[in-house]
Amino acid sequence: MADKKMYELGAVRSKFSELFEYGQEQAKKIGAENVYDFSLGNPSIPAPDCVKEAIFDMYNTLSSKELHSYTNARGLLEVRQYLADYMNETYNAGVGADNFHITVSSSASLAVLIRALQEDTSDEFIVVAPFYPEYRVFIEPIGSKCVVVPPDTEHFQLSIEGVEQAITPHTRAIIINTPNNPSGAVYSEETIKELAALLTRKSAEIGHPIFLISDEPYREVIYDNLPILYIPHYYDNTIVTYSYSKSLSLPGERIGYILVPPAVDDWQYLMTAILGAARMYGYVCAPSTFQRVIAAVHGATGDISEYDKNRHLIYDNLTRMGYDCVYPSGAFYLFVKAPDGDSIQFMENAKKLNILIVAADEFACPGYARISYCVDSDMIVRSLPAFEKLLAMYK
Amino acid sequence: MADKKMYELGAVRSKFSELFEYGQEQAKKIGAENVYDFSLGNPSIPAPDCVKEAIFDMYNTLSSKELHSYTNARGLLEVRQYLADYMNETYNAGVGADNFHITVSSSASLAVLIRALQEDTSDEFIVVAPFYPEYRVFIEPIGSKCVVVPPDTEHFQLSIEGVEQAITPHTRAIIINTPNNPSGAVYSEETIKELAALLTRKSAEIGHPIFLISDEPYREVIYDNLPILYIPHYYDNTIVTYSYSKSLSLPGERIGYILVPPAVDDWQYLMTAILGAARMYGYVCAPSTFQRVIAAVHGATGDISEYDKNRHLIYDNLTRMGYDCVYPSGAFYLFVKAPDGDSIQFMENAKKLNILIVAADEFACPGYARISYCVDSDMIVRSLPAFEKLLAMYK
Repeated sequence: MADKKMYELGAVRSKFSELFEYGQEQAKKIGAENVYDFSLGNPSIPAPDCVKEAIFDMYNTLSSKELHSYTNARGLLEVRQYLADYMNETYNAGVGADNFHITVSSSASLAVLIRALQEDTSDEFIVVAPFYPEYRVFIEPIGSKCVVVPPDTEHFQLSIEGVEQAITPHTRAIIINTPNNPSGAVYSEETIKELAALLTRKSAEIGHPIFLISDEPYREVIYDNLPILYIPHYYDNTIVTYSYSKSLSLPGERIGYILVPPAVDDWQYLMTAILGAARMYGYVCAPSTFQRVIAAVHGATGDISEYDKNRHLIYDNLTRMGYDCVYPSGAFYLFVKAPDGDSIQFMENAKKLNILIVAADEFACPGYARISYCVDSDMIVRSLPAFEKLLAMYK
Repeated sequence: MADKKMYELGAVRSKFSELFEYGQEQAKKIGAENVYDFSLGNPSIPAPDCVKEAIFDMYNTLSSKELHSYTNARGLLEVRQYLADYMNETYNAGVGADNFHITVSSSASLAVLIRALQEDTSDEFIVVAPFYPEYRVFIEPIGSKCVVVPPDTEHFQLSIEGVEQAITPHTRAIIINTPNNPSGAVYSEETIKELAALLTRKSAEIGHPIFLISDEPYREVIYDNLPILYIPHYYDNTIVTYSYSKSLSLPGERIGYILVPPAVDDWQYLMTAILGAARMYGYVCAPSTFQRVIAAVHGATGDISEYDKNRHLIYDNLTRMGYDCVYPSGAFYLFVKAPDGDSIQFMENAKKLNILIVAADEFACPGYARISYCVDSDMIVRSLPAFEKLLAMYK
C-alpha cells in the first residue's frame, strides 16, 4: 500500500521519539520534577528578544503581500545580500548573495545538497563518527553508500588515517560537524588543516574534487573563547550548511542556508543543481517571515553563557563522581563513557533512575551516551543524586 | 561537479521566473503602471487580520520554547486535533488527529506523498491535463512514469475515457486538482462520481487500489455558490493535500497538510511511510508559528469576493471583446484560447503589449494561455485597451 523502505524510515523515527514520550508519561506518574530528561537537543534558552521585536516591527510596517508572498526559490535577495555582508564582515568570506540558498534549515540543506551532488548511485559520501544519524537518511535512500570513519575515541578530533582509508575513486563528499553533535568536541585548526591537505592530495589522486560539507548548526555555540573557524579558508571545495535552530533557538521555525563559496569548482552549476534538487523534494522557498527575521536580528544569538553554566555544572559534577566524560568545547552535549562499555544497558539503567540519555550507538559510537544539557539548570542539580546512584550500580 | 538532471531541473525553474523578471525590468523602464503582469499565482488579497492578531497574541502569551521548539514530525497534536475537528464539523469527514501530517505546504505534501506511495520505479502516476507542471517534477526524477490524460477542451471537466485509457496494472495513483490551476474549472459532482466508479472498477481489475490524490490548494476559492465537495466521501482511497497559501494568502510561509482518511487501505502504514519520506527529503516539521496560526484562525479565509470581482471584470470584458475563455468557476485563473491556436506566439504577442501571461503548453494544454487575476483590479482595467490591441493583431 506504500513503500516498505519509506515505512521503515518512518517507523524508526517513531521509535526515536519513544524515549521522549516515555519521559512525558513518567512525568505524569511521578511528577515532572522527578524525571531528568537529557534526551533532546531542543534549545532551553529563549530566542533573543530581538526576534520578537523584529516580528512585531515587520508586521506593523509591511503589507501582507510583502510579508507573505512566495519569495525567490533561493530566498529573498535582500536577505541573501545581508548574509553575504555578514559573512564578509565576520569571516572575510568574500561571498555574494548568489552564493546562498536559504533553506528550511539544516536537514533540508543536507538532503538537497547531497541529492544535488550525487551524479550516480555509485557516488559515496563519507561521514565521521560520532555523527548525527540523519546524515545516513539523506544518503542511503537515494542509493549511495554512506561510508563511516570510525571515531577517534582518544581526542574526539577526526582520524586523518580513517578518512584516508574511507576515500575511494567514488568519493563525492565528506561531511564534518564541528562543534560536534553528539560529542561536544570542536575540531582544532590543526585537524582542519590536515584534513584539507589530505582532501587536496586525494582529489588530485582520484581525478575529481572531494567536496567538504561543513555542517555548522552549532557554529556559535562554542566555549573557552575558542575561535570560530571559517572552513572555506582552509579548503576551496567547502560547502557550508547552517541553521538558526540553535544560535537563535528557533528549531521549530525551520530556517537556515546552504553556502557555496565562489572558490568551489563550478559553483554556479552546483547552485543550479541545488535549485533543481530543492524543486524535486518539494521545497518552494524557506518561510518568508523568518527569512526576514534572520536579516533583522543581524547576527544576534541566544545567551550562550547559559549553556556554559550548564556545561560546567554537569561536566564538573559527573567528572568528580568518577564518570569518564569527553571535555565539551562546543554544542550543548556531554559525551559520557558507559562505565562497563555497554551503552545500551547504561541508557536502560539510567532510565530506571528516571534519567533519560541517548546511547551513542545510533551515532556510530557505541560505548558512549549523549547527555543534552540544553535544559533547566535546576534539573541538572536535581538529577545529580540519581547520577551518583547510576554510577554506584557499576561498583 | 553536480548532478546533470538536478542542474536541468534547476535551470528550467530559472527560465520560469524569466517572465516575472522581465516584467520587473519593463516596469523600471516604462513605469509599473504600464506593465500588466498576469503571470504569477501570488494572492493579491491580504491575509485576513486574524492572522496578524493570532501571531501578536501568541507572541505575547507563549514562551519562546512553546513557540519555537521542534514539534512532532507530523505536527503539533493540538493543531492536528483542531484540523480533525474542523473537517468533521465542516464536511462530516470522520477523521482524527492521526490522519493528518502537517507539511511545508502543497509541493512538500505531494513530493513526500508520491515518494511514500512509490513501491517501485515501475509504478505510474496519472495526471490530468491541464495540470500544475510541478507534479511531473515530483514523479519523474524518482524514476516513475508521469502518465498524462489529455485535456477535455470541451468542458474542462475530466475525460473519464482518457483516465480509463491511462490506467495500467502499474498505476499507483491519479492526481486531480479542482478548482483547477490553470483552467479555473471546478469538477462537478457527476464527474467525481464517474471517476470514483471507474477507479473502483479498475482497482478490482488490476488487483490493487488506485489512490486518488485530491490536491486542493484552491478548495475555498470557488464562486457562484458552488458546493465544496469532500472527495473522500465519493471514493475511499482518496488522499487530500491542502495548502493555506491561497485560502489565507500565506504562500511564503509554507504551511499545509496531507490527510489520509481512515477509509484508505492500510492508512496507518501509509502515514508511517509519509513520515519516512518526509525524513528522507529533509523535512523535520512544518514551521511551528504557522502551525499554531492555522488552528488559531479557525477556518478563516481571505476575502474571496475580491477575486470574484476581478473574475467578472476580466471574464466579462475579454469575452465581450471576442476572446474565447473557459468559464472560471474557481481558483483565480482565466484560461483563454489563443486566437490562432498558437499559444507560444500568443504569449509573445501579449508580451510586446506588456501583457504578461503564461502559455499553457507547460500545463500540457497547448493552444491556451493562463491569465492570473489575483492582481489589483486597477491593473485589469488599465490592461483592457492592450487586450483589445492584442486581439486586433489576429484580425
